Amino acid sequence: MDIGESNLNFRHKIGDQDLIIAIAQDYKSNKVLMVAYMNREAFQKTVETKKAHYWSTSRQKLWLKGESSGNFQNVKEIYVDCDEDAVLIKISQKGGACHEGYESCFFRKLENNKLEVVGKKVFNPDEVYKS
Amino acid sequence: MDIGESNLNFRHKIGDQDLIIAIAQDYKSNKVLMVAYMNREAFQKTVETKKAHYWSTSRQKLWLKGESSGNFQNVKEIYVDCDEDAVLIKISQKGGACHEGYESCFFRKLENNKLEVVGKKVFNPDEVYKS
Repeated sequence: MDIGESNLNFRHKIGDQDLIIAIAQDYKSNKVLMVAYMNREAFQKTVETKKAHYWSTSRQKLWLKGESSGNFQNVKEIYVDCDEDAVLIKISQKGGACHEGYESCFFRKLENNKLEVVGKKVFNPDEVYKS
Repeated sequence: MDIGESNLNFRHKIGDQDLIIAIAQDYKSNKVLMVAYMNREAFQKTVETKKAHYWSTSRQKLWLKGESSGNFQNVKEIYVDCDEDAVLIKISQKGGACHEGYESCFFRKLENNKLEVVGKKVFNPDEVYKS
């Protein structure tokens, strides 16, 4: 993968990193599972390995999604937005995407000024992240 | 809307703004239409008016989506992610979401190291943005 050809614009500067936004969407259900950032290396590794890699802005490190939990994201398709500063990856999610055990990180809905849990819990984070 | 109760974490600092990421998804088709940022005011106005507002990081201003094009986004549902630094808004999109005339900003797919246009053009930007 020659990233030069895809002309991405890593214009989101957080800390010392140049980043794009990456949205992960289930390739079958079209459910939005999570959003995170990728630096150039994370994007390149995602394309090359077909497993989603991100840049963790909190831990300041490259992050293969699933490296701790086993909940890898197999990448089926990659879409690029008009400004070339965001990608939409359509994935097959092993287990759940959310570190709190839910299928999607967007498991709460704003209703009458309160957050209500509406998502489905698909694994127990205490077991998955225990080691 | 008392944003305090929703506990959002405007932790993405770009320029002098504290921002959350906002993903707009068609509430019927589940197509992801665009991603942008919201500051506190944009989020508050989105909740209050049920029309999507964003913070434009390039123009450094509050931005009512559709203010130039007429392509407003009527907000049906708002979801918040685990880290409370991103929202997923399910919307009804008037016209198209993309300023280039496409239904979705993610109108190009990465195929064999090239970007191929796969999206549907739904309006002519030269006409819509002419004034």
